[in-house]
Amino acid sequence: MKRNFKITLAYDGTRYYGWEKQPGQDMTIQGKLEAVLTRMVADENAPAEVDPIEVIGAGRTDAGVHAKGMVCNAYLPTGKGELAIKTYLNRYLPEDIAVLDVSEAGDRFHSRYKATGKTYCYTCYAGDAKPVFNRRYCYVLEERPDIGRMKKAAEALLGEHDFASFCANPRMKKSTVRVVDSIEITERGGYLNFTYHGTGFLQYMVRIMTGTLLEVGFGRMDPKDIPGILAACDRTLAGPTAPPHGLCLMKVDYN
Amino acid sequence: MKRNFKITLAYDGTRYYGWEKQPGQDMTIQGKLEAVLTRMVADENAPAEVDPIEVIGAGRTDAGVHAKGMVCNAYLPTGKGELAIKTYLNRYLPEDIAVLDVSEAGDRFHSRYKATGKTYCYTCYAGDAKPVFNRRYCYVLEERPDIGRMKKAAEALLGEHDFASFCANPRMKKSTVRVVDSIEITERGGYLNFTYHGTGFLQYMVRIMTGTLLEVGFGRMDPKDIPGILAACDRTLAGPTAPPHGLCLMKVDYN
Repeated sequence: MKRNFKITLAYDGTRYYGWEKQPGQDMTIQGKLEAVLTRMVADENAPAEVDPIEVIGAGRTDAGVHAKGMVCNAYLPTGKGELAIKTYLNRYLPEDIAVLDVSEAGDRFHSRYKATGKTYCYTCYAGDAKPVFNRRYCYVLEERPDIGRMKKAAEALLGEHDFASFCANPRMKKSTVRVVDSIEITERGGYLNFTYHGTGFLQYMVRIMTGTLLEVGFGRMDPKDIPGILAACDRTLAGPTAPPHGLCLMKVDYN
Repeated sequence: MKRNFKITLAYDGTRYYGWEKQPGQDMTIQGKLEAVLTRMVADENAPAEVDPIEVIGAGRTDAGVHAKGMVCNAYLPTGKGELAIKTYLNRYLPEDIAVLDVSEAGDRFHSRYKATGKTYCYTCYAGDAKPVFNRRYCYVLEERPDIGRMKKAAEALLGEHDFASFCANPRMKKSTVRVVDSIEITERGGYLNFTYHGTGFLQYMVRIMTGTLLEVGFGRMDPKDIPGILAACDRTLAGPTAPPHGLCLMKVDYN
């Protein structure tokens, strides 16, 4: 009998080609997780009877992006309990992937379809020192951006909009309308944190919003430009895509 | 005219074969620093007249050991000021080596001979989660050691002793007598910090002390064993050498 488990993960994305498994590419988070889960249930059952386990992720993090609260689910033919599964996964997954929680969910739980919101944090460093020990987890800026200007620009991004100008995929067939509930920009010890909450995000959307806010902060764009950029639905008008290593998926919400 | 500069550094030792330069080994902290300083003064002077810069370190950190407050000094034929030197070094040193401070010192300042004390911190992790983002900077333990027992054992290490049992070099010709002033063991969020202060430490001494304290914490040695281990001056009686990546040189004291 298969039971559906909700799995919450943290990972350092530095070494990985993103969440999603890809043929011929061993270094994906989903691929690592499916391999260990498949081995776990094969050890427990007659191996010939076990199909490879498929893991459903709440979203796809890009290559180099980190997570402190990624959620996924998998139907597992196992007699193991939640803690035993967590312990097994933490033992056999690489040291840069950690399972924070395993909990049995109802059969109808789907980590992507049931997600109601996500929190991402983008971290920059604009202080005097070099962030030697955090360098893999923040984007080091050459100069300090103007936070007041960025906060004004962030306000213009809030709400429901067509975010096509902030989407990496120019041929997106599905809707590019999304709701961004909040963007908080905080500064502490040279670090700038951009915390985004919304119902969902398009490919590269958080990184393009961050890159655009930084352009505003550096005075190369104006907060007043944001409504026009949104209305144009033209990726070329928004700012550059901020690099992946500053981004971290913090939390996925469920009702 | 050469001026003597005191340079304070932080580095992530993961990629390096330790502080000390070695022939044919490009990846040492001292080697990186000397190369950039030599280039800096060569740019400023007639290159033919510039000898390679030599950097004197307060001590030698081992391969894989980190630093948040390493101190060194160098005599530089430069007209640059302190801030200009710091900025130059931070620009051209790799991203895992940061210069925290550059200050002109008297000609007689010698980072090693004038050092009066050092603080090292050894970090272990014994919590429930995997420390995905700090894994390069802590030694992950399989079980939680008994802190009360380790504190008792640490007391027996305090004071002036011949630490030959805690020295990696069995043929040490110089004195192996050292003074350890304080050992603090603190626990927070699954992390255990062992903070050592002393006048100086032998090769691997902090790591062997930590490995020995952990043996006591795991019940495989007793706090009462420490005086005998010290008295025997026999490396084989102390515990194993804890791995380098948990160790960080925090501070070097000068009068």
